[in-house]
Amino acid sequence: MRDNVGMTTGGQPLRTIADAGEFGLIAEVTRGLGTGPSVLIGPGDDAALLAVGAGGVLVSTDLLIEGRHFRRDWSSAYEVGRKAAACNLSDVNAMGGRATALTVGFAAPAGLPMEWATDLARGIEDEAASIGAHVIGGDTSASESIVVSVTVLGEADRVVPRGGARPGDVVAVAGTLGLAGAGLAALSRGFRSPKAAVEAHRVPEPPYAAGPAAAAAGATAMTDVSDGLLADLGHVVEASGVAADLDPAAFVVPEAVRTVAEALGGDPLRFVLAGGDDYALVATFSPQATMPPAFRPVGVVREGSGVTVAGAPFDGSTGHQHFH
Amino acid sequence: MRDNVGMTTGGQPLRTIADAGEFGLIAEVTRGLGTGPSVLIGPGDDAALLAVGAGGVLVSTDLLIEGRHFRRDWSSAYEVGRKAAACNLSDVNAMGGRATALTVGFAAPAGLPMEWATDLARGIEDEAASIGAHVIGGDTSASESIVVSVTVLGEADRVVPRGGARPGDVVAVAGTLGLAGAGLAALSRGFRSPKAAVEAHRVPEPPYAAGPAAAAAGATAMTDVSDGLLADLGHVVEASGVAADLDPAAFVVPEAVRTVAEALGGDPLRFVLAGGDDYALVATFSPQATMPPAFRPVGVVREGSGVTVAGAPFDGSTGHQHFH
Repeated sequence: MRDNVGMTTGGQPLRTIADAGEFGLIAEVTRGLGTGPSVLIGPGDDAALLAVGAGGVLVSTDLLIEGRHFRRDWSSAYEVGRKAAACNLSDVNAMGGRATALTVGFAAPAGLPMEWATDLARGIEDEAASIGAHVIGGDTSASESIVVSVTVLGEADRVVPRGGARPGDVVAVAGTLGLAGAGLAALSRGFRSPKAAVEAHRVPEPPYAAGPAAAAAGATAMTDVSDGLLADLGHVVEASGVAADLDPAAFVVPEAVRTVAEALGGDPLRFVLAGGDDYALVATFSPQATMPPAFRPVGVVREGSGVTVAGAPFDGSTGHQHFH
Repeated sequence: MRDNVGMTTGGQPLRTIADAGEFGLIAEVTRGLGTGPSVLIGPGDDAALLAVGAGGVLVSTDLLIEGRHFRRDWSSAYEVGRKAAACNLSDVNAMGGRATALTVGFAAPAGLPMEWATDLARGIEDEAASIGAHVIGGDTSASESIVVSVTVLGEADRVVPRGGARPGDVVAVAGTLGLAGAGLAALSRGFRSPKAAVEAHRVPEPPYAAGPAAAAAGATAMTDVSDGLLADLGHVVEASGVAADLDPAAFVVPEAVRTVAEALGGDPLRFVLAGGDDYALVATFSPQATMPPAFRPVGVVREGSGVTVAGAPFDGSTGHQHFH
């Protein structure tokens, strides 16, 4: 427990949600949640799976908060809308499903220009429509800062959870890695370029077709890369009770990532392995499986625990938590 | 357009979301939303209905914002959780359905005591479990103030929309009206009583069994009373292209509502007809239908438009909009 906590109660330091951290908070609030026959997959995966009639619906919720997930001086309202939809659609993609619908909770200061709200809505709808999904409901309220809460619903012929990776499986990724993180780093230092990186931060391009393709190809486990590959693959190996080792030579480092790393100093591979917000997919496949063309092998699943790079822990940040 | 707008662009006053108002904002952002074969009921009703396999899933999202929908000095975290779940479960109830699952987006300042978050989660789960529903997913983030975004999913054997009321139908209500509004008025003036009213504001008690019962009994239209009976029945008559007239003698005014009206001055019927947050149901039934016992007749549907009380417009507030 950290000791920099001002409030106390009866001499005990009051534990805050920052002390618990994002994952600690989620663990505590989801502990002991009831379940029922209709809950096929509960909290802890990219999306939950709820029985509906003879079938099932995938559902996931993601928040975008001004100042935490976006800045109005870095991204247009339309771009924030595209990203809010994309990171939710990605959660269904990561289960091997196809998103069909979104609901949107939108809270904002009363003085927000109407155009910002309508541009946001257009961005959400355009991103959804790009894969045949639609906004079907929502709620609005006034608030101190802008909050966009999106819930996505979808369907899958076969659901790929996080916990199915087995020793000997191939680790593979689909989509871009590192660009969005490099873009955020550039924007944070006051740069507006390189364009490819900054645009990837503003509007990610999840490999939407790759999720259902991986499911059809028999992927044993899958998640999307929102917090960084090492962190998100970490969730897969933890849920699966295995370890994974990545081959650093297997990764293509985008030119824009190299440019940012050179300008700011540091290892470009850090953006690829630990940068978040690209909404790529990482999946595991049996060595006998035929991987869909969108995936490229980057490592292997082993017995044990944790994620290593060329057999050793990677020296760098491994994803971000929102309360730290 | 209001002219108290400070920001201008090219000499034109910049229109804000406060200028548009909550319903204006919703109308603008939902205008032109795409639709598809899977969207059976889109935006504009209590919940949307999405096709899933051969069946369908009801879905609705509601936001609760600190300082707008609750105050930490008026309600405990557990009570806020109960209410956040209740107002969402009520949306499925208002479609004639049964809620099965919730997702929760939770944003809060990093210094919030952990206990507040876990109490909130317990309140949400307890309210959901009271009707056999469960929390199956969510997201957390840091933010300036507390935001609770709940999405509910449910099923219905028969869905009751807002737009089916016909001239000659009986208007009927199930559940309590006026208590929560009176409780809010009391709290706003610094009172902590009467208990029945204050508790109704903190934790509403929607008539959960009455929604599916109304659907089974052939209700022609239904909605829940979140913004006040006159406002919410107004949405029903507008969607149905009809008018409604209420009989003021048909309403039972709870004792606690009378107490608050006497203490603060004013007509107790104002709380019953225009007070929000009780999450009662208002439905319309053919005169030949056998209403479920939870419902009591309070008026009639007529040709025309708008809602009247004893043939005349009601002189008082007709619900609240969040941006005014």
